[in-house]
Amino acid sequence: MKSSIRHWILLTTLVVPIGALAWQGSDPIPGFSASRAAGQRALEATLAHELSTETTGSYFRYLTEEPHPAGSERNYQLAEYTRDRFIEFGLENVELRRYDVYLPFPRAVSVRMIAPIEYEASLKEDGYPVDKDSYASEVGITYVGMSASGDVTGQLIYAHSGNPEDYDWLESQGIDPRGKIAIVRYSVPYSYRGFKAWEAERRGVRALIIYSDPMEDGYRKGDVFPDGPWGPESHIQRGAISYDFIVPGDPLTPGWASVEGAQRISIEEARSAPRIIAVAMSWRDAKPLLENLGGPVAPHDWQGGLPITYHVGPGPAEVRVQVDMDDRVRPIWVVTGEVRGSREPNRRVVLGNHRDAWVYGGVDPSSGSATLLDLARVLGKMAGEGRRPDRTLTLASWDAEEMHLTGSTEWGEELAESLAEETIAYLNVDSSTAGPDFTAGAVASLNPVLVSVLRDVRDPNTRGSVLDAWKRLKAVDQDVDLVDNELGSGSDYTVFLNYLGIPIIDMTFDGPYGVYHSQFDNYYWMTHFGDPGFRYMTAMAEVWGRLALRLANADVYPFDFELYADRVDGFLTALDGQPGVAGNLDLTAARDAVAAWRRDGAQLNEGIASELARGEGERLRAVNDLLLQAEKAFLLDDGIPDRPWFKHALYAPRYTYAAMSLPGVQEAVDEKDWERARSQLALLTASIQRVSEILSQAAAGLR
Amino acid sequence: MKSSIRHWILLTTLVVPIGALAWQGSDPIPGFSASRAAGQRALEATLAHELSTETTGSYFRYLTEEPHPAGSERNYQLAEYTRDRFIEFGLENVELRRYDVYLPFPRAVSVRMIAPIEYEASLKEDGYPVDKDSYASEVGITYVGMSASGDVTGQLIYAHSGNPEDYDWLESQGIDPRGKIAIVRYSVPYSYRGFKAWEAERRGVRALIIYSDPMEDGYRKGDVFPDGPWGPESHIQRGAISYDFIVPGDPLTPGWASVEGAQRISIEEARSAPRIIAVAMSWRDAKPLLENLGGPVAPHDWQGGLPITYHVGPGPAEVRVQVDMDDRVRPIWVVTGEVRGSREPNRRVVLGNHRDAWVYGGVDPSSGSATLLDLARVLGKMAGEGRRPDRTLTLASWDAEEMHLTGSTEWGEELAESLAEETIAYLNVDSSTAGPDFTAGAVASLNPVLVSVLRDVRDPNTRGSVLDAWKRLKAVDQDVDLVDNELGSGSDYTVFLNYLGIPIIDMTFDGPYGVYHSQFDNYYWMTHFGDPGFRYMTAMAEVWGRLALRLANADVYPFDFELYADRVDGFLTALDGQPGVAGNLDLTAARDAVAAWRRDGAQLNEGIASELARGEGERLRAVNDLLLQAEKAFLLDDGIPDRPWFKHALYAPRYTYAAMSLPGVQEAVDEKDWERARSQLALLTASIQRVSEILSQAAAGLR
Repeated sequence: MKSSIRHWILLTTLVVPIGALAWQGSDPIPGFSASRAAGQRALEATLAHELSTETTGSYFRYLTEEPHPAGSERNYQLAEYTRDRFIEFGLENVELRRYDVYLPFPRAVSVRMIAPIEYEASLKEDGYPVDKDSYASEVGITYVGMSASGDVTGQLIYAHSGNPEDYDWLESQGIDPRGKIAIVRYSVPYSYRGFKAWEAERRGVRALIIYSDPMEDGYRKGDVFPDGPWGPESHIQRGAISYDFIVPGDPLTPGWASVEGAQRISIEEARSAPRIIAVAMSWRDAKPLLENLGGPVAPHDWQGGLPITYHVGPGPAEVRVQVDMDDRVRPIWVVTGEVRGSREPNRRVVLGNHRDAWVYGGVDPSSGSATLLDLARVLGKMAGEGRRPDRTLTLASWDAEEMHLTGSTEWGEELAESLAEETIAYLNVDSSTAGPDFTAGAVASLNPVLVSVLRDVRDPNTRGSVLDAWKRLKAVDQDVDLVDNELGSGSDYTVFLNYLGIPIIDMTFDGPYGVYHSQFDNYYWMTHFGDPGFRYMTAMAEVWGRLALRLANADVYPFDFELYADRVDGFLTALDGQPGVAGNLDLTAARDAVAAWRRDGAQLNEGIASELARGEGERLRAVNDLLLQAEKAFLLDDGIPDRPWFKHALYAPRYTYAAMSLPGVQEAVDEKDWERARSQLALLTASIQRVSEILSQAAAGLR
Repeated sequence: MKSSIRHWILLTTLVVPIGALAWQGSDPIPGFSASRAAGQRALEATLAHELSTETTGSYFRYLTEEPHPAGSERNYQLAEYTRDRFIEFGLENVELRRYDVYLPFPRAVSVRMIAPIEYEASLKEDGYPVDKDSYASEVGITYVGMSASGDVTGQLIYAHSGNPEDYDWLESQGIDPRGKIAIVRYSVPYSYRGFKAWEAERRGVRALIIYSDPMEDGYRKGDVFPDGPWGPESHIQRGAISYDFIVPGDPLTPGWASVEGAQRISIEEARSAPRIIAVAMSWRDAKPLLENLGGPVAPHDWQGGLPITYHVGPGPAEVRVQVDMDDRVRPIWVVTGEVRGSREPNRRVVLGNHRDAWVYGGVDPSSGSATLLDLARVLGKMAGEGRRPDRTLTLASWDAEEMHLTGSTEWGEELAESLAEETIAYLNVDSSTAGPDFTAGAVASLNPVLVSVLRDVRDPNTRGSVLDAWKRLKAVDQDVDLVDNELGSGSDYTVFLNYLGIPIIDMTFDGPYGVYHSQFDNYYWMTHFGDPGFRYMTAMAEVWGRLALRLANADVYPFDFELYADRVDGFLTALDGQPGVAGNLDLTAARDAVAAWRRDGAQLNEGIASELARGEGERLRAVNDLLLQAEKAFLLDDGIPDRPWFKHALYAPRYTYAAMSLPGVQEAVDEKDWERARSQLALLTASIQRVSEILSQAAAGLR
């Protein structure tokens, strides 16, 4: 496989002397003619120069000062704060949009063991003298978002991670989960806690307790808070269990925006609302429960890090779980602002981060919110000084991501038409920083431009490029293979990719992080472990900003559809290897369609390369208009079966949030419904042919 | 590769109807003509019928009633008891031999943490109401056999399993083990505790603490005593640290027997005596020490099952270790008895088990001692009834195996000449039973006869054959591949194999067993977890007895030298793949020698098969006399370099007790001493040629 970016890389290797630091950057930039690339680099150098760890740190301090969950007074204040900063920074069209969404708060949550001994779980986290925030009275009741209300009592079972194979094993031992209380752990193998709730509900479990085993994020990983970045004995991973893998956003307005006067269904009708009650707890709270289980010894890989032999029950532990939720609709607030494009203001790149946190939100999401604010400051300043991008940048601060990806979804649904028409790409940063390890997922057409940016950004620790640091973590053949192109869900890019058909990139700096969604994910944690000095938050602002400016200023949108075709061919190969596919599904037409797409993509890449080499940009405008439509050609009118909101033929989340490629076909294959698999494959093939046609037309325009 | 046993298996497959139970047995028996095989099976059926779980259980009860370490009054009483039973059972030439060997007992052992907090390790195990034996006052001081005496204080470091790569890692972190106290765990990856001591001594560690991590044999494996077979919080794995990988047996008489008037070297001169002080402890005792280590977090695979993050230090823990040993020579007692052969009394099969235990010795070794006693009872009874084997069986009860394989080594050294002349094979059973999982190691020539026996013995749980049960545990191409032919050390077969050049088999029934060398390895443990009903102890008596009788009665000794050649060819292949060998060591001559050996072995197998088919045995007697010399052809006059006691060219223990094949060559390769490797290879090749010549001569006699 050859793609244009590969040629550039090869050229670079020949031209740049060995030992020259890549981040000093004089390589070609995807989508730019050589003459314009120099100017772009100068512009980006200004951006990099203006970004400041100091201002980033001050925003971060302010954002993490108080707990600010969606629906809280404080999170509204932070919306106003963000809006005011956007205005102060010189952003345009600054808006504060309100959506009224289903957002229940807890009135009471309790877990009591009534046999063989009496015991009540604290459901509280400890305070530590070194960290004032850990003594927060305002943290309030610990709860699981979107839990049902109820008061149930039953025998306890331990169901490992709460995945289907776990219940299958229990049933193979004659242990019936129906009517039981199940305790499960976060989560090896990983599954979204909402999937655990879904599966528990499906199996007839009456209540679900999810706890953090020290094997996963506690002492077995390393030193715990406040001595290290891992979760201490009392830490609780809060979180929602919305069935947003069915449809995200406000459960009462599935597929349309929760604006004033919008039609609303009842919560009983809502497919994304769980019917099961669920509670999260620390391992310290869970230990007495687990210690009072008899029955078979749990399998070897179910054994966790607690100093006991894990048994599965049922009983002798009997547990009463009470959850009382207020079932209210509450306002949430989306803040947006623009840096208007100087030449093509109606073409835009959207940059988004959510603002709501489970508690203080140190990593998640305030590291990203601080990054967004400092980037907004610098972009506004540059615009004020005449350094304005050709196309518009929209910066967004989402709300209630933690509940059901709500703010971004409602905003995307409300503005669907103009977004689909105008948006080149959506660049998501949820948590910007939990450590120094860059990682990203993206639609594969964007791999080259992302890699080109990472080559130009200096890694704060290694002082080489972020790209080189990433390569040290992940062995790949080609730089573009670093990027994960299998896209699941769990953050705000979902509405853009799956509902609107807009290409996305999702980025973070990762690291050892055991306090996710606990009160210890806070200022102390970040300044001692995650990002002392705010250098990686600032590095992310540079990556994010350069990427936005390259997309906004490129002569031609830097999409590599040849590479993209290769990735989708890989999806087909993976499908082909699955049981039953060989005899039941003929992939020839789909393979042929991808081969044609690859040819058309290669021709277009060549055409663009020679057009850029000639330094003439005129004919590229028509190419851009066609490229803007390409990703949307993958949208299916009816969406994927049983999940019409998810319209993209190539991607959907599994219920676990894991990526599922070619979802319409894949789900039919999983269920051995070969007739449906064939009809979904036909729809997929047709969508690929549509893309091919667009690329072919674009290439023809360059001949 | 084809070997005679393979042909028999094939025949069996054709002849025996599907579904027929193999243990009903009408297959050919290796070494027997068809006419004599039927009589042999009838004899073995009598053996199987006479063996009794009831008498076995009564012997086991008596043997485990009190702690009986080597050198104790009780172990002398058990020697007398064994002698008296042998006489009562009708065995002949019953002997009680005394050896006076270096066998120090402890006067005092203590471990105290003096900083950052004061703490003294209990070095005691708990009592449990259900198990009277766990309240034993007579257990005495917990100690490590062959520890030096001393009183040292130093900073503590955690050195994982105490292997060379562990110290290398510490040194890569700038942590110098010199002058430190090291705490290490039993033991993933496995290494003999004596090797841990050797390595610690080599690194300049002042004292070694070895503890049982719950990851390895405690709650992380399953339910702990008295609820399950794994080790409880207080259990301590005692054990010796003799450097018996240099030379086993009494350190004061290396290479000769400790009989009256024997010359003795001083303990200072003894190469097998450690100079380091060492202590064993439970994880409960170790936890406060580990909790008080700072420094780097230990690597992921050094983390154990305790609810802490393991650090490596050094300090802040400072520890004082005191060990005071009495350095005395004590008497030990080897009991032997014979069932004299009716036709060839001067040819013998030796069956041995050690009697000395660290405490009660439930599994180790009293399960094997009870098995030996019941087998002795039945063999004696059968002999009394005229069912006497053709050749002699010698039954042995060794002493001080736990200290330095002492009893068997002294006995083998004392009787070397007659043993070498008369012994067909040595059959070792140390622990006979910790559970239902058969496993065995052997010199490869004996694989077929072992497999033939296992096909005829019924597994108490599955009611199919022991062979079928083993095959369910271990996937192999051919039944003969089940047997482990890479032989290390750690039990009483060492003197027979490595010093005398006698083929050996070593067998056990294994299972979940977390109380090794602790006071919980006792009657309660065995009757609740290891072998309730004593069915596997009795099954081992049947395996052992049938095997001895087949070797004692066969027309021709059932050695398969063709198969053996294949195994040694495999050793050469493994050697060939090691770094540096390709360029420095020419294996051609060795390969050629093995190929000739294989041809000669095949010819001999064919000659024997047709001789047996003709039902004439006369010419086989001459073959037997040659075969008796074959294994001894592998003995090297000077032994392997630096370890002259280890004379066998094919096997030696690594210092870890793990198997090392072709040790003279292998150790030179490990040290990249290519000149030595070449000279050792020449010696190896010559030994193979000697074997080939013997086989060739034997085959010629049958033409």
